[in-house]
Amino acid sequence: MGRPTLNSVAEAAAVSRQTVSNVINSPDVVSPETRERVLAAIEKLGYRPNTAARQMRTTRSQIIGLCIPPSGNGVSGVVLDQFLHSLTATAERFDHRIMLFTAADDEAETAAYADLIASVGVDGFVLTNTHHDDLRTRWLLERELPFVTFGRPWGAEDTHPWVDVDGAAGTRLATDHLVRQGHRKIAFVGWPEGSGSGDDRRAGWAAGLAAAGLGDGPRAAVFDGVEGGRSAAGRLLEAHEPTAFVCASDSLALGVTAELRDRGIRPGADAAVIGFDDTPTASVLGLSSVAQPIADVAAECVRQLRTTLRGEAGAEPATTLFTPHLVLRTT
Amino acid sequence: MGRPTLNSVAEAAAVSRQTVSNVINSPDVVSPETRERVLAAIEKLGYRPNTAARQMRTTRSQIIGLCIPPSGNGVSGVVLDQFLHSLTATAERFDHRIMLFTAADDEAETAAYADLIASVGVDGFVLTNTHHDDLRTRWLLERELPFVTFGRPWGAEDTHPWVDVDGAAGTRLATDHLVRQGHRKIAFVGWPEGSGSGDDRRAGWAAGLAAAGLGDGPRAAVFDGVEGGRSAAGRLLEAHEPTAFVCASDSLALGVTAELRDRGIRPGADAAVIGFDDTPTASVLGLSSVAQPIADVAAECVRQLRTTLRGEAGAEPATTLFTPHLVLRTT
Repeated sequence: MGRPTLNSVAEAAAVSRQTVSNVINSPDVVSPETRERVLAAIEKLGYRPNTAARQMRTTRSQIIGLCIPPSGNGVSGVVLDQFLHSLTATAERFDHRIMLFTAADDEAETAAYADLIASVGVDGFVLTNTHHDDLRTRWLLERELPFVTFGRPWGAEDTHPWVDVDGAAGTRLATDHLVRQGHRKIAFVGWPEGSGSGDDRRAGWAAGLAAAGLGDGPRAAVFDGVEGGRSAAGRLLEAHEPTAFVCASDSLALGVTAELRDRGIRPGADAAVIGFDDTPTASVLGLSSVAQPIADVAAECVRQLRTTLRGEAGAEPATTLFTPHLVLRTT
Repeated sequence: MGRPTLNSVAEAAAVSRQTVSNVINSPDVVSPETRERVLAAIEKLGYRPNTAARQMRTTRSQIIGLCIPPSGNGVSGVVLDQFLHSLTATAERFDHRIMLFTAADDEAETAAYADLIASVGVDGFVLTNTHHDDLRTRWLLERELPFVTFGRPWGAEDTHPWVDVDGAAGTRLATDHLVRQGHRKIAFVGWPEGSGSGDDRRAGWAAGLAAAGLGDGPRAAVFDGVEGGRSAAGRLLEAHEPTAFVCASDSLALGVTAELRDRGIRPGADAAVIGFDDTPTASVLGLSSVAQPIADVAAECVRQLRTTLRGEAGAEPATTLFTPHLVLRTT
């Protein structure tokens, strides 16, 4: 038997982890019977719920928590490896450690924060995949817990430290390059509106067209993946006959090149395609792509979090926006 | 200031982490002057060196250490994501956590073990990339520390628990399939001799040829990567004109298909190519490949380590060999 955790309380009370977390953080949303049962289990096991902020101020575990996203991110998954390695190596230089955990959604992730703080005494968190109405950052801010995000607080004020890559600058670089090559019909293949990074990448392409006096360009929004890129390219080719494609990801770009080839259009010769993320697959296939300085992002996340943990953060949250660069290959 | 660690001792004594570890574990290899300095720093900082085994038996941190390999594994990197996610999720079900660390080589990894045990009180370790003369497993065995490896103890007895995938069975499946398709000149593209998993994969191909009465087949050994696959395919085609290729990795297989295309040989139509690892890139490009049940491997690693930690392991180390399966696509 180890220390009692959210898991063991949940098991003892025959409820979910989320319910235990609710009893601790938002007791009103739990029925009185269930609440009783969970509180009894907490007492019986000696679980210390939500000693979070107190514990954080008095002791230092030197441990940083990171929620590892489910795999299946397609070819972009490799970017996570780079991020994890740089994060771990930088943390070690500062005598900190990275502890992994999983969570099915934002709410489960906040339950995991509470658990990690109570059971392990984690010092702070690095968050990835920020998005609009991010309840994780709200939850951490309310409790004044140290964290940093890889990703801007989309649609919200700069109320916490963040590190990000300027996606708009990346697609702008791609678009400017295509304009210089003489392309006039430059399409954008991206994701449905509403995702912070997706809208950001589309904005860079639109700004590039505007700067070149090319007005509105043709664009398609699909879910990420090779099939999405394929269908988007098909529709765009039939309606607008673009000669170049700026894509929000390498997966989309691979779909576009596949569709072009199927139609007898040679990527790199008859049409240009530029992806985003510079995955190993892009390198293998000769796909031009926008490269993010992922190792730098991870190192900066650790440095910012360390500043917070040492109580050396200024009045304004630290924010760092890295500029990506363009890797030109055969497409 | 957090707890003193190997790092802070190393810094205070102006020596490397390895030197501190040597002073603790093999003092004879360190000069008396350096030893003095390191011991003084240990005393001054209150570092608890090598309380390892003792600490492990009395307390449980519920933390499992995993050394994260440097990225740059090419298209195979994504397999690590799957492994990490499954490892973390399974550990959580048993109320354990995964802590990451980095190490440049085996010796640095053992120094990190000592540090993690002394500073964090890690319960045990999961090791990847086992190899001949693996000094990590020897180090852990000598100290009776709990661990499990993803990978067999190549060239050594089964002296510790391990989980692995039967690579030979995978290349045998690939070879048998090609034989059934009517191929008679089936080449193998693998790595230089001496790597456990590489030799294993080559053995499966050789066994498949022998079973079909095809004798010795043409083969080439190169370092992993697309360029290696390319040059191996070129040499094999010129010397032996094989019609099919079994490859030790998807990276090699991608190089083979690229070389075939450059020579006007259509993969899937004029020649068959089968990779190994079933990476997302293979899926995107329609490359046939041998798929490893990575999530199952990770989950089994946690289960075996848990058995050891609970003192429930039998007299013989637990060993689990998973069988891979063949994913046929267009090549």
